[in-house]
Amino acid sequence: MNPDRSSPSHRLPTVPPFDSLLPSPVQAPPGPRLPALAHRMADMPPSAVREILKVAERPDILSFAGGLPAPELFPVDEIAAAHADVLREHGRSALQYSTTEGFGPLRDWIAGHLRRRGIAARPDEILITSGSQQGIDLVSRVFLDPGDVVLVESPTYLAAIQAFAAYQVRLVAVPSDDQGMQVEHLAQLIATHQPKLIYLVPSFQNPKGTTLPQARRAALNAIAADHRVAILEDDPYGELSFDGPAPRPVAADSQGNVLYAGTFSKTLAPGLRIGWLWGDAAIVRKATIAKQAADLHTATLAQRATANLLQRFDYAAHVAKICEVYRQRCQTMLGALSTHMPEGSRWVAPAGGMFVWLQLPAELDADALLPTAIARKVAFVPGSAFFVDHERRDFVRLNFSNQPPESIIEGMRRFGGVVSEALDAG
Amino acid sequence: MNPDRSSPSHRLPTVPPFDSLLPSPVQAPPGPRLPALAHRMADMPPSAVREILKVAERPDILSFAGGLPAPELFPVDEIAAAHADVLREHGRSALQYSTTEGFGPLRDWIAGHLRRRGIAARPDEILITSGSQQGIDLVSRVFLDPGDVVLVESPTYLAAIQAFAAYQVRLVAVPSDDQGMQVEHLAQLIATHQPKLIYLVPSFQNPKGTTLPQARRAALNAIAADHRVAILEDDPYGELSFDGPAPRPVAADSQGNVLYAGTFSKTLAPGLRIGWLWGDAAIVRKATIAKQAADLHTATLAQRATANLLQRFDYAAHVAKICEVYRQRCQTMLGALSTHMPEGSRWVAPAGGMFVWLQLPAELDADALLPTAIARKVAFVPGSAFFVDHERRDFVRLNFSNQPPESIIEGMRRFGGVVSEALDAG
Repeated sequence: MNPDRSSPSHRLPTVPPFDSLLPSPVQAPPGPRLPALAHRMADMPPSAVREILKVAERPDILSFAGGLPAPELFPVDEIAAAHADVLREHGRSALQYSTTEGFGPLRDWIAGHLRRRGIAARPDEILITSGSQQGIDLVSRVFLDPGDVVLVESPTYLAAIQAFAAYQVRLVAVPSDDQGMQVEHLAQLIATHQPKLIYLVPSFQNPKGTTLPQARRAALNAIAADHRVAILEDDPYGELSFDGPAPRPVAADSQGNVLYAGTFSKTLAPGLRIGWLWGDAAIVRKATIAKQAADLHTATLAQRATANLLQRFDYAAHVAKICEVYRQRCQTMLGALSTHMPEGSRWVAPAGGMFVWLQLPAELDADALLPTAIARKVAFVPGSAFFVDHERRDFVRLNFSNQPPESIIEGMRRFGGVVSEALDAG
Repeated sequence: MNPDRSSPSHRLPTVPPFDSLLPSPVQAPPGPRLPALAHRMADMPPSAVREILKVAERPDILSFAGGLPAPELFPVDEIAAAHADVLREHGRSALQYSTTEGFGPLRDWIAGHLRRRGIAARPDEILITSGSQQGIDLVSRVFLDPGDVVLVESPTYLAAIQAFAAYQVRLVAVPSDDQGMQVEHLAQLIATHQPKLIYLVPSFQNPKGTTLPQARRAALNAIAADHRVAILEDDPYGELSFDGPAPRPVAADSQGNVLYAGTFSKTLAPGLRIGWLWGDAAIVRKATIAKQAADLHTATLAQRATANLLQRFDYAAHVAKICEVYRQRCQTMLGALSTHMPEGSRWVAPAGGMFVWLQLPAELDADALLPTAIARKVAFVPGSAFFVDHERRDFVRLNFSNQPPESIIEGMRRFGGVVSEALDAG
């Protein structure tokens, strides 16, 4: 069932440094009239990022913790017009139950969009999901039994660790460098662990900001297909490229085994919860059945309004504007880090996305630093949360998309001060 | 893991009569480059109801198949105004990521609403879900390991069967009569099967239309609490009462072990996908962690718009209007059935909800009748889909909420003709 609970690669993040910040107990036992919980719940801690978000919501804190897009770039007026349009023209259909697969014209648009990115997508290969997070959950439902192995980048997206934990699988870390997953380790890891799935964020990765080179993508595709391992390509950031076009997805060269999870959360607005899953039609059909059982379908109105918006609106120009703003914010953050971080800190400039991944000097412990930082009114996510085994504690993830330049400068000044003091004290 | 695949009570509905109606293959094997599917997928057929809906969407068919509310009663203008308001006043927040628990003012309103129904609800005991279907999924995630037993009414809600199938549990049927679950069987069934959960729709049940009397509710609460069995009360229809107030929920007399899944799908609009889960705060906290992993949170905009609508709008008067229209449609259907159904047919008038449950004469097979009915341009759901073992094939579920009276009369005329002919032929 879950044969390897003692294996280090199975253990999942716990968040002791944040427990004291939380308003409610996280591990309260069931009441006296209740049955035992499912075993999977023992593996499912709350997400550190989302719990920190609650603390960091305090308006006096400059937060670089969340993976939040810039709300001032949300096309609010156009989204309002799209909702008004849809409710005026198709109100009854837009508020009724609808098919699990999703709204046809929206799937058509997404198929065209993916074709422009190089993926040979047909609308019937697309399932509308409630954000790309649900894509991770549904692919897990379709493929993963307890004890199965998933290979993930090290570090990897925190909420993917959480999503996989619900399926009681064993996560095995693939090392990564400044160009992402080190695919030369895959042959050995596949031979040893017989994984069913490789999960990765190949473009502008969360948390590292790295982008996998095309040669590595080709190698990944070849070895996974040869060994009948499915690839889940999670690509929320691919369009947020600072120079040149979005990277060619791994899925563009799929041999039938790549599932691609996309989303409008970073390019339109996350509060709509509209994402999609693309892949082999038979597998997407299975994911559709799994989604039927989970929540019937994604909100009809939000799907229709999104489709309406995409028809009335220059999506490419909008994304280009986001890229330019994020590029500037990233530059601002990199400059402020150069100014305020003590010697021995290390980071790599990302070519897109929303994050800078920073290594603290002298193996300072980022988890231990966080309470001080919160007291100084600056927040970040300690890097340990992104490692399957928490094995590194000297990294920090900094988000640059959600603060204006002046706040980024002030925030990095505060953060640099916290780090410098800790260094002096150590 | 799944110890009892051969047990009749484990087998789940397959839908052979509809396969030929479907546009796409339902059991295609994975491609040559893909790993084996998870074992749970073997237990997860597509929902017959949702597949029939696709066929019954043809405009020439009078469909009584779906569980669709009347779209002409959706408060379209008010929902449009609520979205416009929220996007004008709080556009950036309404389109941003938000907490998994849900929007505070909406949880406050729901807590007040539940208190008016007799449940001692606090806002922190409420999780906003993507429809009440997700409540079933999340409660399953929290409590159910493979091989665990869930007691369900016989017949029960089809999509609950599907939701539980994803958790590889064993469903054991509790007999029901014209007043719902026969709770006198519970002691024996609990002793024999050691269930973790009892799932039921106590008010205006789907598919039977039955309502559990208060004495049975009290007996259910007592025995479940005594044996540490959780109860999942699924209550989408409780407010749709034709005479008098909504029934007092089972959850109103919970001893800490009742989870209550509610929804605005039947009272406002299903296309918003806004439901909720109420229960013991520690369990709701667990469900919140499970939801974080599944889809992060329910759409921020839809939650805020719903909260805005509920403040601007006379919800009680709106629900009263729905009840009156549905009461009339139900009366029309009952009258038309009296006129058109051959002798030996049997049904019981429901006191609320959206369905009439009809027993065909002479043990006619409803599954076999469906293709003829579709050819005569009338659709229904064969009752077998609602039985864990498909053990009864002589029942039909008829929805009366989604057709105007004249269509109900014409539809029952067509349906009565199909049944009469089959009876004559038999």
